[in-house]
Amino acid sequence: MTLTQDVARTVAGLRDDVCALHAELPRYGLVAWTAGNVSARVPGAELLVIKPSGVRYEDLTPQSMVVCDLDGTVVEGDHAPSSDTAAQAYVYRHRADVGGVVHTHSPYATAWAARAEPVPCVLTMCADEFGGDIPVGPFAMIGDDSIGRGIVETLAGSRSPAVLMQNHGVFAVGPTARDAVKAAVMCEDVARTTHLARQLGAPVPVSEADTDRLFERYQHVYGQQEERS
Amino acid sequence: MTLTQDVARTVAGLRDDVCALHAELPRYGLVAWTAGNVSARVPGAELLVIKPSGVRYEDLTPQSMVVCDLDGTVVEGDHAPSSDTAAQAYVYRHRADVGGVVHTHSPYATAWAARAEPVPCVLTMCADEFGGDIPVGPFAMIGDDSIGRGIVETLAGSRSPAVLMQNHGVFAVGPTARDAVKAAVMCEDVARTTHLARQLGAPVPVSEADTDRLFERYQHVYGQQEERS
Amino acid sequence: MTLTQDVARTVAGLRDDVCALHAELPRYGLVAWTAGNVSARVPGAELLVIKPSGVRYEDLTPQSMVVCDLDGTVVEGDHAPSSDTAAQAYVYRHRADVGGVVHTHSPYATAWAARAEPVPCVLTMCADEFGGDIPVGPFAMIGDDSIGRGIVETLAGSRSPAVLMQNHGVFAVGPTARDAVKAAVMCEDVARTTHLARQLGAPVPVSEADTDRLFERYQHVYGQQEERS
Amino acid sequence: MTLTQDVARTVAGLRDDVCALHAELPRYGLVAWTAGNVSARVPGAELLVIKPSGVRYEDLTPQSMVVCDLDGTVVEGDHAPSSDTAAQAYVYRHRADVGGVVHTHSPYATAWAARAEPVPCVLTMCADEFGGDIPVGPFAMIGDDSIGRGIVETLAGSRSPAVLMQNHGVFAVGPTARDAVKAAVMCEDVARTTHLARQLGAPVPVSEADTDRLFERYQHVYGQQEERS
Repeated sequence: MTLTQDVARTVAGLRDDVCALHAELPRYGLVAWTAGNVSARVPGAELLVIKPSGVRYEDLTPQSMVVCDLDGTVVEGDHAPSSDTAAQAYVYRHRADVGGVVHTHSPYATAWAARAEPVPCVLTMCADEFGGDIPVGPFAMIGDDSIGRGIVETLAGSRSPAVLMQNHGVFAVGPTARDAVKAAVMCEDVARTTHLARQLGAPVPVSEADTDRLFERYQHVYGQQEERS
Repeated sequence: MTLTQDVARTVAGLRDDVCALHAELPRYGLVAWTAGNVSARVPGAELLVIKPSGVRYEDLTPQSMVVCDLDGTVVEGDHAPSSDTAAQAYVYRHRADVGGVVHTHSPYATAWAARAEPVPCVLTMCADEFGGDIPVGPFAMIGDDSIGRGIVETLAGSRSPAVLMQNHGVFAVGPTARDAVKAAVMCEDVARTTHLARQLGAPVPVSEADTDRLFERYQHVYGQQEERS
Repeated sequence: MTLTQDVARTVAGLRDDVCALHAELPRYGLVAWTAGNVSARVPGAELLVIKPSGVRYEDLTPQSMVVCDLDGTVVEGDHAPSSDTAAQAYVYRHRADVGGVVHTHSPYATAWAARAEPVPCVLTMCADEFGGDIPVGPFAMIGDDSIGRGIVETLAGSRSPAVLMQNHGVFAVGPTARDAVKAAVMCEDVARTTHLARQLGAPVPVSEADTDRLFERYQHVYGQQEERS
Repeated sequence: MTLTQDVARTVAGLRDDVCALHAELPRYGLVAWTAGNVSARVPGAELLVIKPSGVRYEDLTPQSMVVCDLDGTVVEGDHAPSSDTAAQAYVYRHRADVGGVVHTHSPYATAWAARAEPVPCVLTMCADEFGGDIPVGPFAMIGDDSIGRGIVETLAGSRSPAVLMQNHGVFAVGPTARDAVKAAVMCEDVARTTHLARQLGAPVPVSEADTDRLFERYQHVYGQQEERS
């Protein structure tokens, strides 16, 4: 498969971005060793850019990123793509609004996932970012569409950009890969503070009405216009 | 609005200080992504200097700081100010002694806030810095004076320079922005150690009399004369 | 004992590798002060390369590594070898497939060890890496073969490359020293997330059948062909 | 007071050492802001070298260290000495074998101190380093000899080089300042792992006989001969 010049240029930029965004995963304590990855959709093409499998974060280069089509077949790159490529490709095929996907096993969020328990909305930050509870998806084996379908179906019933896959870990999505990374970071932060709150008693819930108001405002008012999302 | 030369010089210095102080927030684990900010009152003017909204800590420059009047209206700066500007402006309007305000969602302190539970004074460090329990303020929606009023009213009943706003996070104040940052750092430290103590049993309270003696001594004896503040 | 030129060259390379791998221990929070070490078998010789005893990680150099025979007697090096040398030598003598051994007191894994409780398999990552629970070995005194025998006997009943020695800490093995370090890192990660999950309720177990399928797939499919292990 | 040339040379070296050792406190997460300090006895003189009060770790220089006599009176230095100087001077006056003292409020150890509960010996590392439980000293007000006396009396009944002062924090001692820092680091490490172990059940105790054997061996065999201390 030969990429048109336009697509090739876009891919080159995304190789840089996706490579650089991986540095956020160890920085925020979301991953150990190689256990987490970031991908980005290539706008204007049925392609995605994703981390190579089993390569450590400090050894990643833009050139080592792998370009796949949306069935997960490698189109460009010298490495095998992340073993999560099939799941992420599924998300891109079924969610046209998603431009980036992140997968982590961040400890507090994954602890909720191990109990198959959603993170309840007891923090204004959770209302702002997730618009309610952070939902739990099914137990799904790797190797076919089960994980991808679990992610898409669970997110369909929620305003949350993150889902806790049972016994497994976090998948976060966003309009761009950077948004998805932010969602993964905030998911762990909210999962941790809520865990800590629950350890010593019952947190006060944020009402549904307040959650709605906080979510609406945050989605439309927060941040710099040009830096939103 | 044109600043007098004196005020402009003061503002320039505060842009440097406030920008630099933001580095303490990730350093002490008080914030994730962009979720926390520092502001300083401009002495001799009805102005404050605050973080731009949604900009990451490593991208902050003195130039990107925003100058607002004490109603929260932008006076100087190319960015939208922090979405917490209204709350912080309220504090400056109602507390002439406050020269700096810090807002964080630091995890242990925010966990107490999620349970609407004050941090009890069981540590000499808590007596030293907070003069008793760290108090909890009301649940308050962002967007009007509710948060600012909640902060001011709660702090009025306490010797503490920090308040845990219910379901939300920490607001800390001080004579200078640096003092407010110190109060935010110590708030998280005390909230964490007290959380850990409570996890395995009942901590021994520090008596009110001992708390008073520790607080008095610390406020008047500790530190270098020229570095107290 | 004089090393043949071939062995000497291999030893020189392993001095570099083993020295460099020690940096991973503090980086992943597995050790405090000098309390952890890495060793490697010298292929083609009855030798191992190990950390010197009581030397801090930042002071290690390839030259300070100690070469011992598989009875733990120093063959080359100016320092006394790690006090865990006897235990690790025992492992090399009894497990021809082991090329690297790591010892840590990483906090979450050691907490399970202090309760003599295996880490139950409630995470896909635990199934992937450990093929089931992470097992607990006996309480064993340092100074004779007790620790080494405890490690070998416990690992014999398990697919796990890591064992929690009761009241003591973690020993992890692998085909290479780098694999053993990875196993030690993942052991702490899994021990931590499982600890967190258990703090707020009962995690959902991963069934034996799913554990088998995950383990099989991960051992044979994950990673780059040339970078496996 | 004029120092003899010999003492002046010793003091200069200790200013360097004590200053450098302070970097270990934030590195191991033992302190927030300025809340912890290291001191060293000046061999051959009735003097000690200690951190200046209220100065941040990154601003410390050898020149900013303060030299006091063993009553805590400043002999050399432009800054006020740590507010813990009286307590540490008391320790030097009553324990001729102590060459270094460290004070921290490290979170896990201080959590045990807040419950006035010794850290029980359930780890071989605790037996090695502390020879049994880490003991708790009395609640003591700052400002007279109460803290110093509490430290000395509590340590007299124990083999431990660290004591948890009730509601307050850790004081650790050693033949040198570096040994005292190591004891403070290991105290937090042991306090943390034991805390984690206790959160999910009852740790297995290490018997008194095993504790004795571990302690004896570790004090006499571990480390490089020339680096023991």
